[in-house]
Amino acid sequence: MEKEKLTIVKIGGGLISDEHMLRNTLTHFAHIEGSKILVHGGGKKASSLQAALGIQPQMIDGRRITDKQSLEVVVMVYAGLINKQIVSILQSMQVDAIGLSGADGNSLVAHKREVKEIDYGFAGDIDDVNASFFQQLLNNKLIPVCCPVTHDQKGQLLNTNADTIAAAIGVAMASIYQVKLVYCFELPGVLKNVDDPGSVISRINRADYLIYQGNGIIQKGMLPKLDNAFYAIEHQVDQVYVTNPQNIFHPKNSTEICR
Amino acid sequence: MEKEKLTIVKIGGGLISDEHMLRNTLTHFAHIEGSKILVHGGGKKASSLQAALGIQPQMIDGRRITDKQSLEVVVMVYAGLINKQIVSILQSMQVDAIGLSGADGNSLVAHKREVKEIDYGFAGDIDDVNASFFQQLLNNKLIPVCCPVTHDQKGQLLNTNADTIAAAIGVAMASIYQVKLVYCFELPGVLKNVDDPGSVISRINRADYLIYQGNGIIQKGMLPKLDNAFYAIEHQVDQVYVTNPQNIFHPKNSTEICR
Repeated sequence: MEKEKLTIVKIGGGLISDEHMLRNTLTHFAHIEGSKILVHGGGKKASSLQAALGIQPQMIDGRRITDKQSLEVVVMVYAGLINKQIVSILQSMQVDAIGLSGADGNSLVAHKREVKEIDYGFAGDIDDVNASFFQQLLNNKLIPVCCPVTHDQKGQLLNTNADTIAAAIGVAMASIYQVKLVYCFELPGVLKNVDDPGSVISRINRADYLIYQGNGIIQKGMLPKLDNAFYAIEHQVDQVYVTNPQNIFHPKNSTEICR
Repeated sequence: MEKEKLTIVKIGGGLISDEHMLRNTLTHFAHIEGSKILVHGGGKKASSLQAALGIQPQMIDGRRITDKQSLEVVVMVYAGLINKQIVSILQSMQVDAIGLSGADGNSLVAHKREVKEIDYGFAGDIDDVNASFFQQLLNNKLIPVCCPVTHDQKGQLLNTNADTIAAAIGVAMASIYQVKLVYCFELPGVLKNVDDPGSVISRINRADYLIYQGNGIIQKGMLPKLDNAFYAIEHQVDQVYVTNPQNIFHPKNSTEICR
């Protein structure tokens, strides 16, 4: 018997920071048929709240260093403000959304990242996705909306990258569903020339990726996203795309990640 | 056939502000057998974040005036920080908790309070409790943890008093379950003498309540809580208590609200 289809969409910080763009993005998400899960980031808002509270955001290689105070901000902004804004907008579009941190329903279990050269603080590396919990929600026609907060089952919340969460959920659900994973951001796809939105690379496999990395065509900011995208396609996820919200339904204008 | 039992516990701001007291309170909640729902407030933390952000909290008769900026704080603190702290602590106690705002699963529908003498801003008065959604979660052995945030189904989040939410959920669930509603705060119950914790009024009906109000024995801060408690007991909720977490299992040391 063919597996049921599941679409997982990850939306990045740039699409969330502007309310008009967020509503537009969610309208596209609302039109996806069948079972679906939304994963969101939200970096900019957390930084601006930190600034308002006089906390200096610390980033290393695009990753937030999460001390105790920063974790509070992350939980407030990601699991609170952004997650509930998204859920309430989706509800107004007749999408029966339910917002989740990794603690809710024990959906995403992680451990605090070990301190090696860098102490990332309360950053969580995922150990387990509660696939049967997500399946239960989907069977009940609920649409999970996941924020980049996980927990360690010992009462500690942790900050986990949203791209990584989307890939981990995709891989975990792939044993039950035929999973399509779409990384949505402001651009139509991975570009050959960052100044030309028309230069979308339509298909990319790992060999191409290494070449593009080597000659500097694919740059730093895209690497964590693509690493997660390749991890997903190499671990039973059926289709992986990188694109903007308008092209969710038009894979021709997107970058397809290939095995 | 006898209805299944459901315990709804509301925990107030004073129990939440101190982490040790919160853990202690949740330990008592974790030991309640069978289906249960937790509703939490959290006023003090919201006020301190407002202060840190330079927003002056405005209260009239113990109710927060919720302008746009205050609503953001309320959503961040109640639906984010406090709700996820509670859920992660409960998960560490093997309670499969799931945190909810009223937007999640369309669980609590409200409308923005009409402006009469006072403009309460983004304060929500409850129109509907999604009892079948709560029942679905409970049937799946999940424990809902509700924060004092509702929504209007048009994309607007609203701030709603947690005592009122607990009563509304109790009344809505009473058609399906035999509901016990427990209002937990720092004191063992409603006191005849605020300076004597031993002066707990063990049973109170509406006639007594009016007398105690008339002679000033029951004072202002207790009135909204008791109004909600009487509303619940007069609308099919089976048992209603006002007490502290230690006495959840000892109704003799509590105040029982009577018809």
